[in-house]
Order: sequence, then structure tokens, then C-alpha cells
Amino acid sequence: MNSSAHSPFPVPPTRAALMNCIDMALAEDLGPSGDLTTDLLIPPSSRARARIISREPGKLCGAVVLGPLFGRLDPQVSVTETIAEGGRFEAGATLATLEGATRALLTGERIALNLMARLSGIATLTARFVQAAGGQARVVDTRKTTPGLRALERYAVRCGGGHNHRFNLSDGILIKDNHRVACADLADAVQRTRAGTPHPIRIEVEVESLEQARSARDAGADILLLDNMAPQAMEAVMNELGHDVLYEASGGVSLETIGAIAATGVDLISIGALTHSARSLDFSLELEA
Amino acid sequence: MNSSAHSPFPVPPTRAALMNCIDMALAEDLGPSGDLTTDLLIPPSSRARARIISREPGKLCGAVVLGPLFGRLDPQVSVTETIAEGGRFEAGATLATLEGATRALLTGERIALNLMARLSGIATLTARFVQAAGGQARVVDTRKTTPGLRALERYAVRCGGGHNHRFNLSDGILIKDNHRVACADLADAVQRTRAGTPHPIRIEVEVESLEQARSARDAGADILLLDNMAPQAMEAVMNELGHDVLYEASGGVSLETIGAIAATGVDLISIGALTHSARSLDFSLELEA
Amino acid sequence: MNSSAHSPFPVPPTRAALMNCIDMALAEDLGPSGDLTTDLLIPPSSRARARIISREPGKLCGAVVLGPLFGRLDPQVSVTETIAEGGRFEAGATLATLEGATRALLTGERIALNLMARLSGIATLTARFVQAAGGQARVVDTRKTTPGLRALERYAVRCGGGHNHRFNLSDGILIKDNHRVACADLADAVQRTRAGTPHPIRIEVEVESLEQARSARDAGADILLLDNMAPQAMEAVMNELGHDVLYEASGGVSLETIGAIAATGVDLISIGALTHSARSLDFSLELEA
Amino acid sequence: MNSSAHSPFPVPPTRAALMNCIDMALAEDLGPSGDLTTDLLIPPSSRARARIISREPGKLCGAVVLGPLFGRLDPQVSVTETIAEGGRFEAGATLATLEGATRALLTGERIALNLMARLSGIATLTARFVQAAGGQARVVDTRKTTPGLRALERYAVRCGGGHNHRFNLSDGILIKDNHRVACADLADAVQRTRAGTPHPIRIEVEVESLEQARSARDAGADILLLDNMAPQAMEAVMNELGHDVLYEASGGVSLETIGAIAATGVDLISIGALTHSARSLDFSLELEA
Amino acid sequence: MNSSAHSPFPVPPTRAALMNCIDMALAEDLGPSGDLTTDLLIPPSSRARARIISREPGKLCGAVVLGPLFGRLDPQVSVTETIAEGGRFEAGATLATLEGATRALLTGERIALNLMARLSGIATLTARFVQAAGGQARVVDTRKTTPGLRALERYAVRCGGGHNHRFNLSDGILIKDNHRVACADLADAVQRTRAGTPHPIRIEVEVESLEQARSARDAGADILLLDNMAPQAMEAVMNELGHDVLYEASGGVSLETIGAIAATGVDLISIGALTHSARSLDFSLELEA
Amino acid sequence: MNSSAHSPFPVPPTRAALMNCIDMALAEDLGPSGDLTTDLLIPPSSRARARIISREPGKLCGAVVLGPLFGRLDPQVSVTETIAEGGRFEAGATLATLEGATRALLTGERIALNLMARLSGIATLTARFVQAAGGQARVVDTRKTTPGLRALERYAVRCGGGHNHRFNLSDGILIKDNHRVACADLADAVQRTRAGTPHPIRIEVEVESLEQARSARDAGADILLLDNMAPQAMEAVMNELGHDVLYEASGGVSLETIGAIAATGVDLISIGALTHSARSLDFSLELEA
Repeated sequence: MNSSAHSPFPVPPTRAALMNCIDMALAEDLGPSGDLTTDLLIPPSSRARARIISREPGKLCGAVVLGPLFGRLDPQVSVTETIAEGGRFEAGATLATLEGATRALLTGERIALNLMARLSGIATLTARFVQAAGGQARVVDTRKTTPGLRALERYAVRCGGGHNHRFNLSDGILIKDNHRVACADLADAVQRTRAGTPHPIRIEVEVESLEQARSARDAGADILLLDNMAPQAMEAVMNELGHDVLYEASGGVSLETIGAIAATGVDLISIGALTHSARSLDFSLELEA
Repeated sequence: MNSSAHSPFPVPPTRAALMNCIDMALAEDLGPSGDLTTDLLIPPSSRARARIISREPGKLCGAVVLGPLFGRLDPQVSVTETIAEGGRFEAGATLATLEGATRALLTGERIALNLMARLSGIATLTARFVQAAGGQARVVDTRKTTPGLRALERYAVRCGGGHNHRFNLSDGILIKDNHRVACADLADAVQRTRAGTPHPIRIEVEVESLEQARSARDAGADILLLDNMAPQAMEAVMNELGHDVLYEASGGVSLETIGAIAATGVDLISIGALTHSARSLDFSLELEA
Repeated sequence: MNSSAHSPFPVPPTRAALMNCIDMALAEDLGPSGDLTTDLLIPPSSRARARIISREPGKLCGAVVLGPLFGRLDPQVSVTETIAEGGRFEAGATLATLEGATRALLTGERIALNLMARLSGIATLTARFVQAAGGQARVVDTRKTTPGLRALERYAVRCGGGHNHRFNLSDGILIKDNHRVACADLADAVQRTRAGTPHPIRIEVEVESLEQARSARDAGADILLLDNMAPQAMEAVMNELGHDVLYEASGGVSLETIGAIAATGVDLISIGALTHSARSLDFSLELEA
Repeated sequence: MNSSAHSPFPVPPTRAALMNCIDMALAEDLGPSGDLTTDLLIPPSSRARARIISREPGKLCGAVVLGPLFGRLDPQVSVTETIAEGGRFEAGATLATLEGATRALLTGERIALNLMARLSGIATLTARFVQAAGGQARVVDTRKTTPGLRALERYAVRCGGGHNHRFNLSDGILIKDNHRVACADLADAVQRTRAGTPHPIRIEVEVESLEQARSARDAGADILLLDNMAPQAMEAVMNELGHDVLYEASGGVSLETIGAIAATGVDLISIGALTHSARSLDFSLELEA
Repeated sequence: MNSSAHSPFPVPPTRAALMNCIDMALAEDLGPSGDLTTDLLIPPSSRARARIISREPGKLCGAVVLGPLFGRLDPQVSVTETIAEGGRFEAGATLATLEGATRALLTGERIALNLMARLSGIATLTARFVQAAGGQARVVDTRKTTPGLRALERYAVRCGGGHNHRFNLSDGILIKDNHRVACADLADAVQRTRAGTPHPIRIEVEVESLEQARSARDAGADILLLDNMAPQAMEAVMNELGHDVLYEASGGVSLETIGAIAATGVDLISIGALTHSARSLDFSLELEA
Repeated sequence: MNSSAHSPFPVPPTRAALMNCIDMALAEDLGPSGDLTTDLLIPPSSRARARIISREPGKLCGAVVLGPLFGRLDPQVSVTETIAEGGRFEAGATLATLEGATRALLTGERIALNLMARLSGIATLTARFVQAAGGQARVVDTRKTTPGLRALERYAVRCGGGHNHRFNLSDGILIKDNHRVACADLADAVQRTRAGTPHPIRIEVEVESLEQARSARDAGADILLLDNMAPQAMEAVMNELGHDVLYEASGGVSLETIGAIAATGVDLISIGALTHSARSLDFSLELEA
């Protein structure tokens, strides 16, 4: 499942996903009266240039929002991306330059920074995990994303070199611990999901031991989620069951532990922290005098 | 501006804000076909109990979503809050218990955890800043919030003992650096905003030096935002200009520096990190066997 | 891939899908002034009973809309399903009975019938195809559904004993003829999609000959879509390539031909006509005098 | 009420109706991640030409969606209509050609075909009924349309040479059988609706016999709906009551019976099958190599 | 067209129209943070009673919003209507009493008063016109309504004893002066509209002279809009053309002139001022101590 | 608080506020079928010029809707404003000219007039109050606006030379009579609101006597709302308490009384009638022959 050679450039979010997020953010931040300060101080005809700058190094994600965001405020704003999406930058780097109505630049500043700094934080953290994994397994996200921003945060994971798990509860099957509490017979459970699931979707089962792994494999699971298992235990499973199924490691993955986990030969390592605990990078927008 | 004695319990978000967020999250996470795994495995008539547990200590925010969220999935779900909003808890604590349709509990699990863990992360970080400030100044948030979640994240700041700054660009006036680049005469700028702003709103001006602070005060500013100034420089401003205006400190505030900043006597200390860089707490939902 | 023994009852559409459809239909059919005729003639306090009747035999789908639809018009309406979803009925059968405000029964009549008659038409046609296939292959739908009604029409296919293909363009990979026109190297194409696709999703490739089938299989396809191939040609492909991949037959499937296609041993037979060309059944609502 | 000479070209749906339908269809078919296959295989810069072709003869309706639909995906797509809306075409005809971003053409293909094939199916069936009626009566639609598509399906009826009945329950009065069950005195009913109805709207009453027709006419009805009456019975009504009211025939109208019904001299013949049971035509989109 | 004896009670707006208006008003007036003053001062458990009082006499319209409005804020609020919709009241009258959460009563107060005072102002003005018309003609509204409130304002006209004209541009035909500027041949225009209009809708033509009236009648108009004609001129038209068509008087209608206009025998008198120039009545909500 | 010299031109509503209102009005007035009369009579290719004219003198507000409104109907319509927003005009004046598709001009006519005539009515009435106040106090609006039109009506007040009060319940604190009924201790109430309110927002308290005013000032109120007090009583308050707080007069303000109220030296005079009882001006749109 190594994909580096053929990996296309990260596919950006759909236009609908971008615009929904941007319009929600504009409604929230402009309020019913708009940007009072700017509208009272800056004449509509004023034009300016501005730069978006990072005060720390990282990996870029989110420049894709600049055009649609500032376009909502002024159709004439032009955006120049000086760092490509997914590209690395150093502290002090200019990430993009903007030119257009001064009002639009000032009014859109905070939303632009909020989105780019958050998404770049995710991409930067993802890239650290990918590097620590040493190219031996896919680093994948989880559903532990910010409500309303999943499409964008998944894109940030891709920009960081990671991959995506299922988007939501309707485009993947994952039989978890809590399902098994309520549904004792695993073989029956796998068959029931197989019978009712669109055929393009694989069946994944969460297991915590070799014994559970074997019964899940025997029941017909396509993917085994090895939950919170030590690297040696994972190796034991794979030695015993072979590689006709995919193996996903999950639980307690840190930058310190991911190397050993990847070395076991699992196909995928899923990490909730990519999206739920990345901190925003320190970006600012500077108007040119 | 000390308010501890009279501080009412944090006012929760409006029902509209809660439901917008919950419905957005449900649409995102259920997708067009709903929770395939659960619907195929669990009969509609199955009922269960579950607990929401924290694996680390913190301050709670977000239990307010449980009722409306699970109510969307099963009108019969009952929620018992075992820790109050704004309350402290230890590792291993049960935060709330749920009882109702097993399907609803499993389908809503991830959204509940995503929201509560994020909001509690913000409340917990805010509480640490409030404690470090020693009760001498209000700890306030900024507009550096997650797009779409501002109302909820501001509530998390309140649950942590912090206070809120303006909600958006239309309910406050803040003349910032970038405005002054495009608008040279500060006295004129303050008068123009005063003339066009609803009278219940105060005028705030960002300054970086005693000289700027004096000219802003003289121009009629109600609040001075002392941006990235050292504590001694802040003290110099307040000694010189007195306390007829409010002082807000901002920029480079950390748990290490906030004590010294608060000790200067500023009224408010605003901290973007409260919302843009808090990490989610480690919460889980456990179905009872 | 035989699933008859374990097939759970068809999972109904999500509440969101049902309510979106119902509210759209109500807005469309009530218009800005509501049901003028009924509101002018029937006092609000009048109550009545009504039956939904079929004038022809068939398989039922759509009773699931009755509760939510009439509930929008009168929270007190009670619905009794006399035929279960997915059940067979004869001409003259009473499908459901309703009791509640006369106004609600009259105002909701047309929407109820429009939805149930259409969905039951799809279920009935699907059941005929399933029967003609003789249980040897899954009968599956396509994306040739009515815009806005896909979730409901897929449910109708399930009620008729059929299965669903991918819901939309984002939860399945299908490399079609038109993609290959623009993307010559199939092995490269499969690798590129594998690299960028969430791992729970299988890769499907449309082929029109044994040669194409072999190259698609060699490129790593998980599913082969045998497009418009004669039964013998399909058998030749399966004899040659074996059953490590799934086979889906498509194109020119009719009630006359499906038996022979199913007999080849393909896993799936997809039929656009299930949803794009089913005619509505002849249902009516009769108020009891 | 003959209108052939002055009949203007069918008025297309409002832009709002078109865009609502298109945006609903795009959200449904693109899903949260968009067209994965196309986005992974086709570079954004690729451009192509495509033709929309019919495999069977018919009457066109729906080309009006092509511009707005593909414009949502690529503002640069150009559409050339080679057959006019309402025009006839033979099997194999090219209905329209498209040129623009390859991604847009592939991603929009299915929605374009779903809408055009359905609407052209309705237009084609309507044209057959209009022809069979021999120009002696208006062929009109009913409210038996697809939920959400009424505005478009009524347009398809117009493209086929038919006419429209009332749009919804608020822009027409039709006292039906079920109203009379609950509202015994017909004269009173007509007066009550007349008193409460905007004066531009005529009052229509459904009748099943000469006796009912006479009492409805005497009560002041403007239009009589002759429900399920034999042609001779209709003639008897018109002979007796004359043509100061309009007559609409309804119920059991087929291509075989419509000629005799039209010959009676009724003004209108309404046919639910136009919209509830037309099958989609067989259209395809072919990318040029 | 006299309808007094059979006139049913005014049909209220649809639930959708009411809820759209109420939810729009709540979003507008609560803002992102809700009712800060009330939420900070009043505990959630506090309950109270309140009365809605008028300081001037009038005719009531709008009590229908109280239940749905306060129900959005507190499902337990009970509303008692002490004056019926359409009923007269004196200065000082209690129009309704409310009991429930104090917060809900205070937060909903302004929206309740804004809507009721406006709608009652329209009903009161309408009643004055109806009385001045002496029961000889229908007093009807126009499309000169407040954007977004048309359904409610039409209801207010009905509560005042008036009637409604067409709701919007799609449920009536009115060939006006500006149409005739661009469309010279009136006979052709009437035929074209007849040909393209659903048959339940009558054709109305605006005329300014006997000559125009005659040509419109001859062209087949069903209703003549006598625009800005003196009463004698109207009588001359009706004497000449008889009463096979309906006559609507419009333009320059005041409380002083309506009596003479009604005495001419026109069927309808339409008055824009009913909705565009009624002033709100002076209502207040008083919390009981 | 005199602001005449620096008052910038009235800031128009946000684009979101304008488009929400325009789209709501278009949906309401076009209905599901659009402008039947115009679409049937006027060919799409016809172009025309039109003028918007006032039959009475006034102050203009609302020309800002013309571009976005007609742009929704025809992107090619050009609008020329012959009177500036906020400008005075005489009877017979041409307010704006339009050129574009005849269909667009006729279809948008009523919405354009409804909005402009209403907003100009508010601006005109406001200007009369401002003039009568003699420049000595700000004339401010209230929350007694039309549901859904608050942003536009506040703009009309600004165009008339008035100022705005808080937009809604979440961007201002106003402790009113009804709050004090439920919350006896005023000093405690002011402290509680101060503690929970974002610091940019001032605290306003409604008082009815010198005694109440003194206790509110002592409790820390920033603004005193002098409710229904005689001018002499207001003067007594200001003499006693001085001008460290702002004074707002409210209640029973008419064109006759405002002069005396303004002469007392209050800072603000708020008048509900500006928005709840202004009548629409008499505007018309004339197509050029």
C-alpha cells in the first residue's frame, strides 16, 4: 500500500465545503452590522497590499480559502500564493500576498488567519508524524475533527502527507468495542454488515487481542483495527494471520512511539491528535504602509 | 472591575447556537445513509446505559450539548450530569451518564465527545490562566476562535472563569495597527467612530507606546489595548494616564508571564491561545455491558 | 456474497433525509397560503379516519413517511401500518389507516400518495428483477435516481430485496470509460486512486473485454464492472481471472435477460431502470364517511 | 380555449427553481469529498469536449439545466444546444455539446443526464397524449409530480405541448370527493370558498354524475371536474348545462381513450401519468477522445 | 360577490409562514449571545405572569404568533387569548395573558409587540375602510406589503374584514400599463396569457378609460382593473359593458372617497395603504409584580 | 457627543443583509412560477429604460437595493442613481434610472418600490425629527423595527440623519422596568451585568424619577434612560447628577415635543415611531415608451 511515487497533489475540498465554511465564518464574524471600525474609517475606494506571514516554521494548508474568502468581500481582490499548499516554510516567510480594497483586506483578516493557522497547524503536526513513521505505514486521521470543519481538516491531513480514514458513519463500516457489547456473535455481525453494506465498502473490525483478531478474520473482516496493542502483540497477529487483510494500529500513538509501531509492518496508523490537539500556528497579516 | 462576588453562573449559548452546531455536526458525521454499522447490528428496540468518562483532570464545559444532541437521535434519552458545567473533575471521573436507545448512544458518541473534549480543553486552559493571573485582572478571549464554534468556545472561556471580549466586528470598535496605517489622524479616527457607532459601545484603540497611549486617550478612547508591551511599560502608561480608561494587555501572554502582567493593574488580559491552541481532553463513552 | 439468511430488515432513511424530503414537499405543495379549499371548508376541530388503498398488487415502500408527514400537519394524527415496509399486497389492499384532524388528512393526502406510490413502484420493480435473478446475484441500484430523492429511492430498492451501490461520487471509486479517454495508463490510474482514497473504499474499474478485464485486475482493481458484455463473455472473464475480485454486470439488463446474466456467476447486477423508469403504483386515500 | 396560434414558447422555470434543484442534486451526488475518481485522475488544467446523445427518439426538455449546472463546476464551460427545448429528435441525435474543464464535464455528467432524461421522458409522453387528443382539448398535468421537481416537471409538460393545472394547494380551489364527505351542502361549500378565495382564482368542483354536475353549476362553480365519467356521460352533462363553465375530464385517461374523451368537447383533460409514470429516455454523455 | 353570511373565520397563515417569520425575528433580535440583560439578572427557574395591553382601541390581529413565539423560548409558556383574532378592543384592554418562565416572557416581549402592533394596525385600518365602503364591495389588499411579511399582512387584512388579491406574480395575471407600453396589441396579449396560464386563474387587465375597458372586455379579460377613474367614469363603464366581468377599482382610494367608489357597484376596491402605510398600534407587555 | 463635522456617509447594510432581504422578497413575490404575465407577454430579448419617480418630497433611502435586486433578474441591468442616498428630493423627482431587460424591470418593479418607499419614508420622518431637535441631541432608533428588516431600517434612520441604538439583545445591556420587577436590588443588578458583559459594552438603566436615576448612577450605570419624564424633571436629574453618564430620553416623543426635550441637554432621544409608524412614500416606476 505504499503510494509515494504516484501520490497526486492533495485534492482540495469541494467548492461547496469551502464556501459553506467561509460563509458561516463571515456571518459569525461580521455580525448584523458588518465591520464597524473599518467601514467608519476606511473609504470604499481605498486600495492596499498586504502579506500573510508566519512567525514560525511549518507546512502550509489553507491558502485555498483566500481567493473565495476575499472574493466574497471584494470581487477585485487578487491573491498570490508564494508558498504552495503542502509546502514547507521557515519563520518569517511570506505565505501569500493580497491586493485589493483596503476594507476587504481588513475585514477578512481574522477569518483568513483563523482558518490558515489552524489548518497549517494540523498539516505541520501530521508531517511530523509521517516523518517519524519513516514511510513504512500510512498515517491516517480519525473522526475526532472539529464539528463543521471535517472536510477542511481532512484536507490539512493530506497536505501534511497523511491519508484519510472514512469521512463519516455512512461511508465505512467499523465494528467497535461498544458494538460488540450489544452484539455478541462476531461472525454473525460481520455477515449482517456485509449483507447490508454497499459492496464498494470494506468491513473493519476493532480487536484487542490475537484471539479477537483471529475470530474477526475468520468472520470475514477486510480490515483489522488493532486497538491499543503493543508492537510485539501486533507483530504476533500479523505473523499468525498473514496479510490478506489490512492492519490499522490505533490508540496511544505519539511521536515517540510511532516509529516502533510502523516498524511492525501495519498498513495504517490512525491518530486522533492530528485534528483534535494540533495548535494553531502563529500567522499574521500585515498591511503595507 | 472585580466581579467575583456577583458573578452569575456562566450563561450558556442560545438554543439556536447549540442546535445549529449540533445539526451541522450530525449532518457531517451521519452522512446520507446514517450510521450503517450501528443500524445493521443493533435492533431499534435495544436500550442501554453509558457513561462519559475523562482520563485526565480538568474543568468541564459542554455537558449542555448532551440533551439536545441525543434528543435529536432519540427523544427518550435521559441525561444525568454528574459534574456541573464549570466544575472540576479528576482523572477517571464520570462526567455524565446516559440512558436510552442503544442506537442513539452509539451514533451520537463521537459528536458528543468531540464537542465536550474540545470545550473542556478550553475551559481547563482558561482556568489555568485565571489562576495564574491571581484574580487581579479579567482573563478575556479574542476573535481567534474556530469558525462556526465561536458562541460555544466563548462559553467555554466563561466556564473556565474567563470573560468575553466583543463577539464580532459589529458589536465593538477596535482601532488596530492596520487601521492606523490607512488612517493617519488618530483623533479624527476616534471621532469618526464615535459619530457612527451605537452609543452603548465603547471605543477601544490599540497602542504600542506611552506616546500612542496618550494620544489615544486624548482623542477620546474609552479602552486602551496595550499591545506587546513589557509590564514596566504598561505601568508607566497607567501611572501617567490614570484609570479613567480601561486597560487591556495583549500579546505574548503565557502561563509564565501572566502573573507579572496582572500585577501591573491592567483591567483585562486577552489571550488568543485560550481558543486557538487548547488541546482536547481525553474523554470516552463506555456502554455498560 | 449470498446474504439472505442474515439480511436484516431494510434500514430506513435517516430522519434528516426523511424530514428534508417532507418539508420540501410541503413547501412546494402548500404554497404561501396553504390548502385554501380545505381550510375554508373544514373546521379545525373536525376529525376523521382514512385508509390508503392500492388498486394494484405490489411491494410496499414509503409507509415510513406517513408519521413524520402527517405529524407536521397535526401532532395528534395516528398512523397504523397494515402492511409492513417491504411486504407484498394485493389489489384493493389497505396499506395503512390514519386518524386525526380532517384538515391534516386532506392536506397531506397528495404528498403521501406521491411518495408512497413512487417508492412502492421502485420496490415492486426491484422485486421482479430480484425474483428473475433467481437469488444468484445481488441486484443493485445505480446513481440514476431522481435528484433530491436518492436516499429514499435507495431505500425502496432495499425494500424490494435489492442492494445499494455507492451513494455518491465521494464514497466509491469507479474508473469509467470517460476517465480512460482522458487517462491512458490504467495501472497508473488504479495506483493513483488507491493512493488518494480512504482505505475502506474498494477500487472498481469498468471494462468491456477480457483484455481490459485482465489489465484492470493486474493493475489492482478490487471490483470489475463488466459493461454491456454478453453472458458468455462474462463467463470467459471469470474463468480466466477467478474470483479474487468482485464482478458487477451492467448495461442492457432486462427482466428477460437477467436470469442468464445471473447464471454466469457474477456477484452483482446493476440496473438503472430500477429508479429511473419505474412507474408509480395506483394508490388512493379514502376518507371514511 | 384553443390557444395554438398564440402559444408563446414554453416559459422556463425561474432561476430560483433551477438553482435549487441543481444545488440539491450537486450536494447529493458530490457528497462531502467530491468526485474522488475524477479529481484523482484528471489534472485541473485538462480541457475536453463532450456530446449529449440520445439513443431513442423523443421531445427535448431540460437543456436549460446545462448552463447553470456546469457553470457551478467550471465558470468557463460553454454549452451549445443543438436541439431546441421542445424540439423533436431522432435516435442517435446530438442534443447538446459541451466544452470546458474535463473535471467539470465528468463530475456533472450524471446529474445532467438524470435531469434531462427524466424531463424529456415527460415531454415525450405529453406530446404523445397531445397528438392523440387531436388538438381538441388542452392536455393538462396534475399535482402527481415528483416531490421537489414540480416546477421542472410542469415545464416538461409545457415543452411537450401540454398545459399546467394549478401549481399547489394555495393557488387554486378544487372541491373534491373527500371534501364533500366532510362537508355535505355543496352550495354552501362553493359560497364559502368564493368568500375566502382571492378573486383571480376560479372555483372548481369534482363531480361524478349529471346530478352532481348540475348542483355544482347551480352552486356557482366555474369549472367542473368530470371524474371517471364515460364520454357519453360527459356529453350529456355538457348538453344539459352548456358551456358557461369549463369542463375538465379526469381519471382513466390513456393513449387509447383520450381521443374519444377529447371528441366530447371538454376543455381540459388532466393526466397524472404525464409526470408520475413517464420513464426516462436513454441519454448518454460521450467525451471526445 | 357578497359573502358576509358565509364568510368563515379568517384562515390564519400556514405554520411554515408563522415559524419562518418568528425564527427570523428571533435570530435578528437575540443575536449571537441571546438576551444578555435578562440572562444575567433572572434565574432560569423564575416564573411570572404578564399581560399584553393596548393603549388605544382597535381590531386585533397577531395573537396567533404568541404561542409559537414563546414556545420557542420556553415550551411551558401558556397563552390565554382574552380577545379573539379579528375582535375589537378598547383602550386599556388586556389582549392576552402569558404565564411561564420569566426569561422567556422578557426575551420575547419585543418581537411579540412588534408583530402584534403592526398586524393589528393593518387590521384596524382595514376595518375602517370596510366600514366606510358600507358592505357594497370587497376591500382588497395589494402586493404593496412588507418584504418577508406578506402572508401575515394578508392575514391582517382578512382579520380586518378585507379580502386578498393574488399572493404573487405567479398566481394571478394582471396586464398593467407598463406591459402595454411594451406589448401594443391588447387582444393578442390577452390571448397569449390565456394560452399560457393555468386555467384556474382569471385574466385581469388594467384600464384607464371606457375605450380601454371595452377593448379589454372584447379581448376576453375576466376582470377589469379601473385605475384612477372617477366614480362616474366607473359607472359609465359598467353601464356600457355589464357585469359579466368583475370590476376592481384602484388608485387614490381614501377613507373619504371609498364610499362613493363603493356606491358605483364595483366588485372590488384595492388599497395599497392597508399594508404600506398603516401605523403600529401602541401595545405593551406588563410583567405582574 | 456632537458628531456633525466628522460624520461619515451612512454605512450601508452588509451585503449579506441586503441579499437576504432581496432573496426573501424575490421568493415571496415571484412564487413558484415566476412573473407569469411578463414572461408570457415580453420576449426575453426586449430591452427598455425606466425611471423611478417620487410623487412627493422626501429624503432618499434604499437606492442601494436596486443594483443587487435587478442584478438577480438580469446581470446586465444598469442602475444610475440620480439622487444620492440620504439626499433630499422634491415631488416629481426622478430618483434613479434603470436600463436592461424589459422582463427584469417589470418583474422587479414592485419589490424595488416596496423597499425604497418604506425606507425613504423612515429616512424622511427621521429627518423631520432631527431638524425639530435642532442639532442638540442624537435622534436614535429603537428595537421597534419590522421583523426581518432591522438592518435596513437602521440604515434608513442613518440616512435620515439619525443614529442607532443597540442592534439586538446581545450587543447592549438595558435594565428595564420589567427586569426590576423581578430583580429588586438595582446595585446588585448593575454589578451582575457588569460582571457578565463583554467590557466594550456600556450598562444602561431605565429610570422614571430622580431617585431612581440617583440609585442607578450610584450603582454604576453608564447610561440613564429617562423614561417618560417631563423636560423639567430631566433637567433636574442632570443638574443633580452631572454629565459623567450619558442621558437618553424616551417615551412620548413627538415632532411637537422633541424640541423642548432636546433643549434639556440630554445626549440622546430615542423614538420608536421612526420605524414602527413611518408611512411609505408614493414612488412609482415608469417604463419609457
